[in-house]
Amino acid sequence: MQLFYCKDISPNGFCTLDAEESRHAVRVLRLRAGDDINVTDGRGNLYQCKIIDVSDRACVVEATANASNQTIKHPDIHLAVAPTKNPARMEWLVEKAVEMGVAEITLLQCDHSERSFLKTDRLEKLAISAMKQSLHTMLPRINPAVKLSDWLTQTFKHSSIQAIKLIAHCEADKPRTMLSQALKLGADTVVLIGPEGDFSAEEINLAIDCGFQPVSFGTARLRTETAALYAVAAFNLINDRP
Amino acid sequence: MQLFYCKDISPNGFCTLDAEESRHAVRVLRLRAGDDINVTDGRGNLYQCKIIDVSDRACVVEATANASNQTIKHPDIHLAVAPTKNPARMEWLVEKAVEMGVAEITLLQCDHSERSFLKTDRLEKLAISAMKQSLHTMLPRINPAVKLSDWLTQTFKHSSIQAIKLIAHCEADKPRTMLSQALKLGADTVVLIGPEGDFSAEEINLAIDCGFQPVSFGTARLRTETAALYAVAAFNLINDRP
Repeated sequence: MQLFYCKDISPNGFCTLDAEESRHAVRVLRLRAGDDINVTDGRGNLYQCKIIDVSDRACVVEATANASNQTIKHPDIHLAVAPTKNPARMEWLVEKAVEMGVAEITLLQCDHSERSFLKTDRLEKLAISAMKQSLHTMLPRINPAVKLSDWLTQTFKHSSIQAIKLIAHCEADKPRTMLSQALKLGADTVVLIGPEGDFSAEEINLAIDCGFQPVSFGTARLRTETAALYAVAAFNLINDRP
Repeated sequence: MQLFYCKDISPNGFCTLDAEESRHAVRVLRLRAGDDINVTDGRGNLYQCKIIDVSDRACVVEATANASNQTIKHPDIHLAVAPTKNPARMEWLVEKAVEMGVAEITLLQCDHSERSFLKTDRLEKLAISAMKQSLHTMLPRINPAVKLSDWLTQTFKHSSIQAIKLIAHCEADKPRTMLSQALKLGADTVVLIGPEGDFSAEEINLAIDCGFQPVSFGTARLRTETAALYAVAAFNLINDRP
């Protein structure tokens, strides 16, 4: 199945693929008027469509079958991760985490960050591509970099968010639960993954104040992006997804 | 901790780092005679060593403390995977799987393989680097590409190998167990991951004949390397590793 992405589908079932999607349909796959394709809006809807007007810049398609609505709420994992110094490692992480069905990614600016900024537009393109590849119909949100302490205070300090909240850090002398024990079937989960230099003691304490539980991923020293993907894989296994 | 790799350590505790390790020690880290380093032989042993003779091509070191032997047998995961068309995806997989503690990787030539050959020397270098990065002391074996049907027949057909044996395929109309149900705490595990075009029906049947249990990783269409890494992560979670 070849899946296309179009953010806006009209109430009458028409949509216009953007330049990249149109070029892929017309130039790469050599599709023509009348051909059938599948389109998702990235919000859980899947449409069976027919190409109405072929153009390699703005292909118009019409939904022919009732949308298959896959917006049933599953437990979600929200990955909050410090960008790695090498941006390619983050790009790889976004691709793999989206394939595995991550719901939301927030980039964190931490005390020990070696990179505090990363353009989200390229990450969003990779996310769209990975969503289509893996036949997901929910496009994860990718939130631009935010200072961890501000984000914790504003989002979690005085909130009653119902989710398992975890902070993965490497300080072996502080009490930590094994990840496998901390995850729970059916529970939305937020996981904080630190930069190459780990979270600072202040960040760990603030996260604990905000209801986050410190977790260990074991004795191996995992790279930031490996730890982040491991958390998503573990969440999936516990919940029998993706 | 900075970990170095040296395959051969003499009974008296001397070893000579190879050119790459020596260059890293002397040129990058600017280490000198008398400095302390940690060395693993990739067979589960960790040595505390002192640099005796500085050279950026053949640094000589001597073990100063009794070796910490970490060769206790843990459950192992052996990943048998068809190389992806794009070799960079396999290189990435090897790095991440080694970080997560895979014990052995076998490259498979399958009926639908788009690439049936991949040089293992570069993969071995990546494996050494990932072992050091993640502070593992066991260097995984990377076996050159072998035809799946031959490998199954020769290794598993008439053998009593005590391991959970799994084949991950995408044929939704054939009975499959969810991965989370198929893995068992404490059990060595072999997982077969197919190429982009999946295993052929004949390959699936032969694997079942050889004692492999068909498993599903869920509804998402995971790329070969994502599925392979997901299997290693799942094995780790079940066994509370790495």
